[in-house]
Amino acid sequence: MPNSVVTPAAGVVCVGLGPGDPELMSVKADRLVRGARHVAFFRKKGRPGKARQLVDGLLAPGTAEYPMEYPMTTEMPVDSPDYVAQLAAFYDDWCARLETLARTEQVVVLCEGDPFLYGSFMHLYTRLRERAAVRLEVVPGIPGMVGCWHATGEPITWGDDVLSVMTGTLPEDELVRRMQSAEALVVMKVGRNLPRIRRALERTGRLDAAWLVQNGTTAQQQVARLTEVEGDACPYFAIVLVHGQGRRPEAAW
Amino acid sequence: MPNSVVTPAAGVVCVGLGPGDPELMSVKADRLVRGARHVAFFRKKGRPGKARQLVDGLLAPGTAEYPMEYPMTTEMPVDSPDYVAQLAAFYDDWCARLETLARTEQVVVLCEGDPFLYGSFMHLYTRLRERAAVRLEVVPGIPGMVGCWHATGEPITWGDDVLSVMTGTLPEDELVRRMQSAEALVVMKVGRNLPRIRRALERTGRLDAAWLVQNGTTAQQQVARLTEVEGDACPYFAIVLVHGQGRRPEAAW
Repeated sequence: MPNSVVTPAAGVVCVGLGPGDPELMSVKADRLVRGARHVAFFRKKGRPGKARQLVDGLLAPGTAEYPMEYPMTTEMPVDSPDYVAQLAAFYDDWCARLETLARTEQVVVLCEGDPFLYGSFMHLYTRLRERAAVRLEVVPGIPGMVGCWHATGEPITWGDDVLSVMTGTLPEDELVRRMQSAEALVVMKVGRNLPRIRRALERTGRLDAAWLVQNGTTAQQQVARLTEVEGDACPYFAIVLVHGQGRRPEAAW
Repeated sequence: MPNSVVTPAAGVVCVGLGPGDPELMSVKADRLVRGARHVAFFRKKGRPGKARQLVDGLLAPGTAEYPMEYPMTTEMPVDSPDYVAQLAAFYDDWCARLETLARTEQVVVLCEGDPFLYGSFMHLYTRLRERAAVRLEVVPGIPGMVGCWHATGEPITWGDDVLSVMTGTLPEDELVRRMQSAEALVVMKVGRNLPRIRRALERTGRLDAAWLVQNGTTAQQQVARLTEVEGDACPYFAIVLVHGQGRRPEAAW
């Protein structure tokens, strides 16, 4: 269909790629990714990058790739002035580079999940919006957590259940406080925070109901009850979740 | 491409249609909807049904349609035994009808948003899983709330923000308690609960930061600061949200 080949409008378009299965990308994301001539994506130095992996096999031959490599290879305390300054300089730098390119070309920024839910792109987004005179668009995606609750085969909320989404980086007492005020729970950014998350779940009586899900909706999907997971080794992108058990009309069975 | 026409595998496939824009349906959902010979969807009597509206123009000619009409046209207290019994009988009935059809045909059940996040299909899902000997599949979708936060043009969470998703049907004191333990808020099922939601936001000091979003990502999208919305009339599917303001590396600007 040669007639369908059109020159993409110049600008920066951030595309939410969804939870992992390429079939769960939106129709719009799929079209933008396949038609892209320039793609940018975050990654840690020496790693392929999760967003980039999700589009394996979808990019056209000759697409230019711009890996945006986080400035640190070892982790620093996230509140340290050094970390904040390095990260800000990194985003400033990429804001300027993307702006230059996007004056004449369409740059597709690849983001796993939904870009506006704990996404790194937000830091570029606010900068580009304030500083750059280029077209800026963000395409929503299915959040990773949605893929993870589907991986368990159970609905996450019923009736009037409250769902709280938190990061495993919170202090244990904060985790406990937040867990106590919701029926359904999603804990993101698990990784080495797993022991603390376990203790908080235990203290709130939720440990037996918790699941650990990795790579939901992909061929590498792993789903297990948290009580059956041995050891504390766990990837950063894993998600812990507890399903709500709210009101259902099954009561009349 | 006549070779691409294949007979869909028999069974029930519930498809999350996403927030509204048909381009935000997943590649898989789009294919299932366009290839469907039988579609079922919930609606109120006398209404077209939101899920059915989202696939306008996508269904093949001759597709059989099965509107699943909720048994009551006026609202009853959701805790009344009559309501619970009527609703359970309604789901039982449709479970049996879909099972019969799905023994030989593929039935695509249309659901707005994500089926596992406060979706009506869950009540059919648990019944079909327990009682029916048919293939059962659920396809995730972008939740309506994700489309709504994109409609505001602002990320919903930053850094360690906790996001709480609740329904406007909760009592005012419960709303207050839940709002106090999260930075970012999504209130679903707004409708006639708007005055109570307003009071709860006011009591927690969040009213000035709240947005009311209707039909996010569609041509009918409406986005307004809640303080600028006059009157209390509001559709059931509207969403109130408050963005988190958590840690960002902008501190180093």
